Amino acid sequence: MSKYTHIREAAYEANMKLPKLGLVLFTFGNVSAADRDLGVFAIKPSGVPYDELTPESMVIVDFEGVTVKGKLRPSSDTLTHAVLYKHWEKIGGIVHTHSTYATAWAQSQRDIPIFGTTHADHNTVDIPCAPPMNDEMIQGDYEYQTGFQIMNAFRDKKLSYEEVEMVLVGNHAPFTWGKNADKAVYNSAVLESIAQMAYLTEQINQTAPRLKDSLINKHYQRKHGPNSYYGQ
Amino acid sequence: MSKYTHIREAAYEANMKLPKLGLVLFTFGNVSAADRDLGVFAIKPSGVPYDELTPESMVIVDFEGVTVKGKLRPSSDTLTHAVLYKHWEKIGGIVHTHSTYATAWAQSQRDIPIFGTTHADHNTVDIPCAPPMNDEMIQGDYEYQTGFQIMNAFRDKKLSYEEVEMVLVGNHAPFTWGKNADKAVYNSAVLESIAQMAYLTEQINQTAPRLKDSLINKHYQRKHGPNSYYGQ
Amino acid sequence: MSKYTHIREAAYEANMKLPKLGLVLFTFGNVSAADRDLGVFAIKPSGVPYDELTPESMVIVDFEGVTVKGKLRPSSDTLTHAVLYKHWEKIGGIVHTHSTYATAWAQSQRDIPIFGTTHADHNTVDIPCAPPMNDEMIQGDYEYQTGFQIMNAFRDKKLSYEEVEMVLVGNHAPFTWGKNADKAVYNSAVLESIAQMAYLTEQINQTAPRLKDSLINKHYQRKHGPNSYYGQ
Amino acid sequence: MSKYTHIREAAYEANMKLPKLGLVLFTFGNVSAADRDLGVFAIKPSGVPYDELTPESMVIVDFEGVTVKGKLRPSSDTLTHAVLYKHWEKIGGIVHTHSTYATAWAQSQRDIPIFGTTHADHNTVDIPCAPPMNDEMIQGDYEYQTGFQIMNAFRDKKLSYEEVEMVLVGNHAPFTWGKNADKAVYNSAVLESIAQMAYLTEQINQTAPRLKDSLINKHYQRKHGPNSYYGQ
Repeated sequence: MSKYTHIREAAYEANMKLPKLGLVLFTFGNVSAADRDLGVFAIKPSGVPYDELTPESMVIVDFEGVTVKGKLRPSSDTLTHAVLYKHWEKIGGIVHTHSTYATAWAQSQRDIPIFGTTHADHNTVDIPCAPPMNDEMIQGDYEYQTGFQIMNAFRDKKLSYEEVEMVLVGNHAPFTWGKNADKAVYNSAVLESIAQMAYLTEQINQTAPRLKDSLINKHYQRKHGPNSYYGQ
Repeated sequence: MSKYTHIREAAYEANMKLPKLGLVLFTFGNVSAADRDLGVFAIKPSGVPYDELTPESMVIVDFEGVTVKGKLRPSSDTLTHAVLYKHWEKIGGIVHTHSTYATAWAQSQRDIPIFGTTHADHNTVDIPCAPPMNDEMIQGDYEYQTGFQIMNAFRDKKLSYEEVEMVLVGNHAPFTWGKNADKAVYNSAVLESIAQMAYLTEQINQTAPRLKDSLINKHYQRKHGPNSYYGQ
Repeated sequence: MSKYTHIREAAYEANMKLPKLGLVLFTFGNVSAADRDLGVFAIKPSGVPYDELTPESMVIVDFEGVTVKGKLRPSSDTLTHAVLYKHWEKIGGIVHTHSTYATAWAQSQRDIPIFGTTHADHNTVDIPCAPPMNDEMIQGDYEYQTGFQIMNAFRDKKLSYEEVEMVLVGNHAPFTWGKNADKAVYNSAVLESIAQMAYLTEQINQTAPRLKDSLINKHYQRKHGPNSYYGQ
Repeated sequence: MSKYTHIREAAYEANMKLPKLGLVLFTFGNVSAADRDLGVFAIKPSGVPYDELTPESMVIVDFEGVTVKGKLRPSSDTLTHAVLYKHWEKIGGIVHTHSTYATAWAQSQRDIPIFGTTHADHNTVDIPCAPPMNDEMIQGDYEYQTGFQIMNAFRDKKLSYEEVEMVLVGNHAPFTWGKNADKAVYNSAVLESIAQMAYLTEQINQTAPRLKDSLINKHYQRKHGPNSYYGQ
């Protein structure tokens, strides 16, 4: 029984939900789970099929991106996870997928407009799409810079990572996060559903209006406000 | 054995059909089943995952929206159910989902045109989309007002809730109902299918005409008229 | 052991394939299997859920549409089946569904253009869409007239029912047929796939050309011509 | 134990993955596995349903397309496989399907634009669409000429089959290949996913730009370059 057992199990369980939720093809996704007291996170090993994963195969990495424990190479996106954990101090889990509809929006380089209450139940703003990186960043430490590209987009759009737990990286694909790995996976599935509905909404009505502010606030507050009345 | 056992079981069975029919992600839906003699309905508890539901966990609520029995908090949409049961006296079951295609139409704020006999087998009119509420209603008792918004749309469009058992709430999502919870779930699945076909119809032919009146009447009468000849 | 056992079993097996192939929601479909020597066909009883069907529940009907044997009421579309069996003498099985993409084309009142070899492997022409009936036919014996509407469309378009084993009925949905019930079900699944691909083809390229004649002939002949070399 | 056992088993296992990955309807697909030392490949028999396949039923064919061993007739596309094995000497497996989205692009006669990193992880260029053959080639030895049509498209577009392991044949459907049958099946599933995402990307943003060169190179190199860091 290692001191990392709890995050390895959390990361393992969360990773195994991705194929069940239809969010990944083959190995195109990864989940990590952090322990802030230990200053590390457990993450999926790179390129290993989901049905060969075990809790023990999860790799332990610190917030600088250095592997602390584990026999396998961690996900190629590990540095992006590390940057986000280091700078966004209340995150406990991160997910990256290439889920179909969210990735299509990322490739379209558009924010996902807030069209309805399904979206407003989770966010009060359009889902942000970070622009593709400039060539200097790409040729540098790419995955490391992806983390900064995400944070810069939040800074430029004046968004809080505690309120908006998802982002599209332009030309690439979505990242989501949350207080733990399980919540981050939940957010990935919610994002995919919102992305599909927004696509269909524009197909059905090219001039569909964004949700009005009063409805945005009402739905978000009933799930997340001080007087929230959703759930037990 | 409680006097509420029959509606708890009916509500439980009907709720469990939603994920099987592909109509809900996570907990984004709820079904209730009413007993008009007792003046109450059983409804899904708020935010509880479907695979943790039991008949006993269903909450008993009266038509004013007051919880009569049950340890858990009822669905956050409970007041909408209560208003509809109170005012539409022949309803025995209500369903709310965020099913993909029906929700996309709701977000588009458009009625679903009657394009074919699949639609006409169930309704003789376009599926109505109630407009988003005004800000006063939203800031008031939101779920309570959602019920009135639905009833107002039926009054304005001169529709009968006994003939048209489904509605889209603009910017939000669908509600369906019926003589019992099982029929209301059936209507949710039918609505989702009609919504998908209508979307595709417009994509394939932007000037596709609505179904002509003679076909609308023929199909509806063969399933629902005094000389209906569908079913046993 | 009745003299109808073989067609009841054939109709039952074929009906049970519809939900497995994703071609029906609830009871929105029916298959029949004919015995031409006996001059009858076995067809699904009306409105009975697929998981309650048994071979014994199939209803035996003659080519005038009169029930010969069976405790249940036959499918409401029985007269359409009867007309087609009576006039198209080499048909041994018929299927009617409201499958999503084929029905969307029917609602669009458009023939499905022949865009590729998947289509040409089965037909050398666009999938015909019979126009909606005139009001007189609708108000008469509707299902009976549906059969004539299909046959009239084939006559007007100079098509052979032996070569083109599928049709869309405008505003309604597809019918398919074949030498037996199993082949008719196969054709329903093929039609749904062709309908989806044709829809996507036009979305991707609004000016996509129809398949050229030399390719149409090549693909059809390699599966169906005198020197066919597909299959065993 | 025959000297062909290993390629029969490889071809069988790879063929059985096609329906599991949702890439085929009925028998509309085939996989072959080659042994270059023996100068033969094992391929699916023509028109045999997947659930009736066995390793022993795979047909052994040489690179001229002549059947060497096997009781059944090989896939009708066998000559296309033979031509590609003969001329592209590093291929060990080939797949042909009529998967929905890739086939729709083939019917649209368009290359699939490289819109994102999911695509760039596998190819640095647009997925090529070979034009439909001229009538002379079609009326000649059709499947044989299909192989040349694919090779000509690669020659005209200056592509390497070792770098780009997939192609659309205009009006027809995709072919993919790889070092072995398993990798070729992987490429078929990747192509279908890329095809769906590219379709959605253009629907969401009609002026979506292609991925810029720096990102194309970065993603391809991290999976395939000399300093690749994806996988174990």
